[in-house]
Amino acid sequence: MNNDKKAQFAFGMVGLGTMGRNLLLNMADNGFAVTGYDKSEKMLQFFEEEGKAHNLKGFSDIEDFVQSLQTPRTIILLVPAGPIVDSVISELQPLLTKGDIIIDSGNSHFTDTSRRYLELKDKGIHFFGMGISGGEEGARFGPSMMPGGDKQAYAHVKEMLEAVSAKVNGDPCVTYIGAGASGHFVKMTHNGIEYAIMQLLAEAYEILKNGLGYDNNQIQQVFEKWNNGRLKSFLMEITKDVFLVKDDKTGGFLVDVIKDEAKSKGTGKWTSQVAMDIEMPIPIIDTAVSTRNLSKLKKLRVELDEAFGDAEKMKVSANFIDDLEEAFYFAMANAYAQGMHLLWKASIDYEYGLNMAEIAKIWRGGCIIRAEFLEDIYQAYQKKPDLEHLFADSGIQQKIKQSLKGTRNVVSSAINAGLAIPCFAAALTYFDTLKTGRMPSNLTQAQRDFFGAHTFERIDCEGIFHANWNQKNS
Amino acid sequence: MNNDKKAQFAFGMVGLGTMGRNLLLNMADNGFAVTGYDKSEKMLQFFEEEGKAHNLKGFSDIEDFVQSLQTPRTIILLVPAGPIVDSVISELQPLLTKGDIIIDSGNSHFTDTSRRYLELKDKGIHFFGMGISGGEEGARFGPSMMPGGDKQAYAHVKEMLEAVSAKVNGDPCVTYIGAGASGHFVKMTHNGIEYAIMQLLAEAYEILKNGLGYDNNQIQQVFEKWNNGRLKSFLMEITKDVFLVKDDKTGGFLVDVIKDEAKSKGTGKWTSQVAMDIEMPIPIIDTAVSTRNLSKLKKLRVELDEAFGDAEKMKVSANFIDDLEEAFYFAMANAYAQGMHLLWKASIDYEYGLNMAEIAKIWRGGCIIRAEFLEDIYQAYQKKPDLEHLFADSGIQQKIKQSLKGTRNVVSSAINAGLAIPCFAAALTYFDTLKTGRMPSNLTQAQRDFFGAHTFERIDCEGIFHANWNQKNS
Repeated sequence: MNNDKKAQFAFGMVGLGTMGRNLLLNMADNGFAVTGYDKSEKMLQFFEEEGKAHNLKGFSDIEDFVQSLQTPRTIILLVPAGPIVDSVISELQPLLTKGDIIIDSGNSHFTDTSRRYLELKDKGIHFFGMGISGGEEGARFGPSMMPGGDKQAYAHVKEMLEAVSAKVNGDPCVTYIGAGASGHFVKMTHNGIEYAIMQLLAEAYEILKNGLGYDNNQIQQVFEKWNNGRLKSFLMEITKDVFLVKDDKTGGFLVDVIKDEAKSKGTGKWTSQVAMDIEMPIPIIDTAVSTRNLSKLKKLRVELDEAFGDAEKMKVSANFIDDLEEAFYFAMANAYAQGMHLLWKASIDYEYGLNMAEIAKIWRGGCIIRAEFLEDIYQAYQKKPDLEHLFADSGIQQKIKQSLKGTRNVVSSAINAGLAIPCFAAALTYFDTLKTGRMPSNLTQAQRDFFGAHTFERIDCEGIFHANWNQKNS
Repeated sequence: MNNDKKAQFAFGMVGLGTMGRNLLLNMADNGFAVTGYDKSEKMLQFFEEEGKAHNLKGFSDIEDFVQSLQTPRTIILLVPAGPIVDSVISELQPLLTKGDIIIDSGNSHFTDTSRRYLELKDKGIHFFGMGISGGEEGARFGPSMMPGGDKQAYAHVKEMLEAVSAKVNGDPCVTYIGAGASGHFVKMTHNGIEYAIMQLLAEAYEILKNGLGYDNNQIQQVFEKWNNGRLKSFLMEITKDVFLVKDDKTGGFLVDVIKDEAKSKGTGKWTSQVAMDIEMPIPIIDTAVSTRNLSKLKKLRVELDEAFGDAEKMKVSANFIDDLEEAFYFAMANAYAQGMHLLWKASIDYEYGLNMAEIAKIWRGGCIIRAEFLEDIYQAYQKKPDLEHLFADSGIQQKIKQSLKGTRNVVSSAINAGLAIPCFAAALTYFDTLKTGRMPSNLTQAQRDFFGAHTFERIDCEGIFHANWNQKNS
């Protein structure tokens, strides 16, 4: 152990932007001796000012920073994902000794994390990819954290991470996720689910606003009511609040003057791309990604709106809002199920050794997709740790069955009115496909064999077959 | 020019599998002096046997093969995509001289083609990525070909490619596609559209079989009728034929004993992944990819079928088959439109300089997605070469409008019956989103700013804004 006086801090942070500062302050609040490094004097000033209750001091010299840490050194990176992570690692690496730990807490692509993990393993440095969710407020007062890497090394950070994390019923919202890049894979999937839920909320808003003609107050009341029931979640909670925020400039509601072009930072896209690589169907997430891209085509949309005309008001029955709640429940459940299904397969393909119940458990608090429904997911995977798909759980099946009638009514009504509900429809068609014991994909295989001699298999015997389909010409 | 006696052939082929042999025989039929190279004696025997009318001889020695070609040498590769292409190129490259041409005609990923193009350009070798569509029969009697690379070098192969290609109204189904990897990009997109159309055919089959209870003869008649109208296409034609092919083993129909697990070779997946990278929405193709992946989950599907029960028979009106024809037309048009839209954006982002009308034109014959509808696409882009989206064409708009009522009826009826129609629904929700001048994505931006301080833009003034959304707490 390096016990000279200089080595006084237990944990160090590289990158003192809002997220990094907030997480350090959270650690300091919990009694840990922490310091930070940033090239920017301004960031160091902010840090020392916000941390003055703890008398925190940061470093602008990376050598001094590293030497101030007790060994094994634990250094958290909160810098932008991409080449900056590599350049920070290459600055740090010559200053470290075997057994030190680097934790990348940005939204790095899991393949970058795999590469860095192996490169640093060769040098005796433990590298963790750790997704953090909860935004700035989560970092400050309790995020959900997803650390993946060497299990032995995890023991060194366990106490600190559990202390700073969010808690649900006293349980910390952090756990050892698994080997290699699993932490970043799980965080990426979290974000994929987040894209899906956000798009479902947007579509519910579309139905309420343009299908039923509700004003913002009425819309707010629907979301508020839902947030008092089984749909209770962080995203539902902030959504209801959004609708009442006033705009200083116009005096109207702020949401109404915001551009309808959704931006994204790439984690949803990565989720869809990787799912296709490992052959897992997650069409609600795919559709949420493509719908964000669609929103960017503003000029084209306005042009086609003029050419094709608006959606109609919906013809709905008296209890339509109840049906919409059921549809939201159904689609949300499908979105979580797709994300969990992806994790289940990734755990096999990449040998992550994921504990599905633990992942659901740590998502119940602190993170953006925290929701009452995660308790049900947690219970289902606790009951059967190797559950292939959430909908194979009989408890979930009962709830899905009860929501089906309302869901079909909402989706078909929106479709008949010309209201755009891509993710609600994707959820329902995904479910209907998944419950089709015999799909029409035999035709696809016949076609592939017809035009490309790609062969097919039979239901009644083993083997690979090719047929002469073009019997007219033979 | 290398005019010694040995250099007697105008074109050489590396890889004498079925596709390579068939394309060489096609070239020989058209009067070109051709030869081939393969390590396998068996493939060389097949080649000489099938080409005995032309007295064709192949080589098993790559040096002899290269020396047998007139300069500038033109060598076509028809070997499996991936590392084999690189290894063939590195074998060939020392034997070539500046100005020689290599044409990779496999389904290589366009990013590999970009890399090879640049590597060989440095050495003075012209590299073409050329997608070929049409299967074995197309290669033999007239494929559609998509060559991309150096425009000057194209002059050397133009006459031969035009001679061997399919023809529509006397026009060859080949054209210079554009710079760099554009040939493989366009072929990849062709395959993405192919995935979508094949899935739509499978869903139409599902509706006819399980929604209406039709037997194979009745299903065949529907597809045959459609193939005599505006839906006429290669895929429709082979689909109708599939339903009548008998199975020798059972005496029943062959299609009924084929496993319902659809395989794929990756080009559809690539299309979706790349579209997400360049932010183009192609949800029908995405859904076709995820539905193939869903089909592979046979065990899970059977389990959930038992838990959730079958789809119901559809309640339909008398002219439902006409509605289904309209729905197919609508969804098919959306699938082509998405593919063309992707090409439009790729042409900008990758500076391919694509001629959209010419691409539609060469797809009218020879290739798997050849269809009557491509004539309409060709006309639309001829009228306006920089058309952003097919549906901005007023002629197409009229046809889409007429098909909307039937489409909405089919999709909502299937949804109410619980029949799985993921791509039909994806087509309709894509269209409905695209014609929404004001999307609900303002909510998405508000949420992102709320929990992540990701900022937003306003509709009434320029700038980047951030709000304090959490007014309860402030």
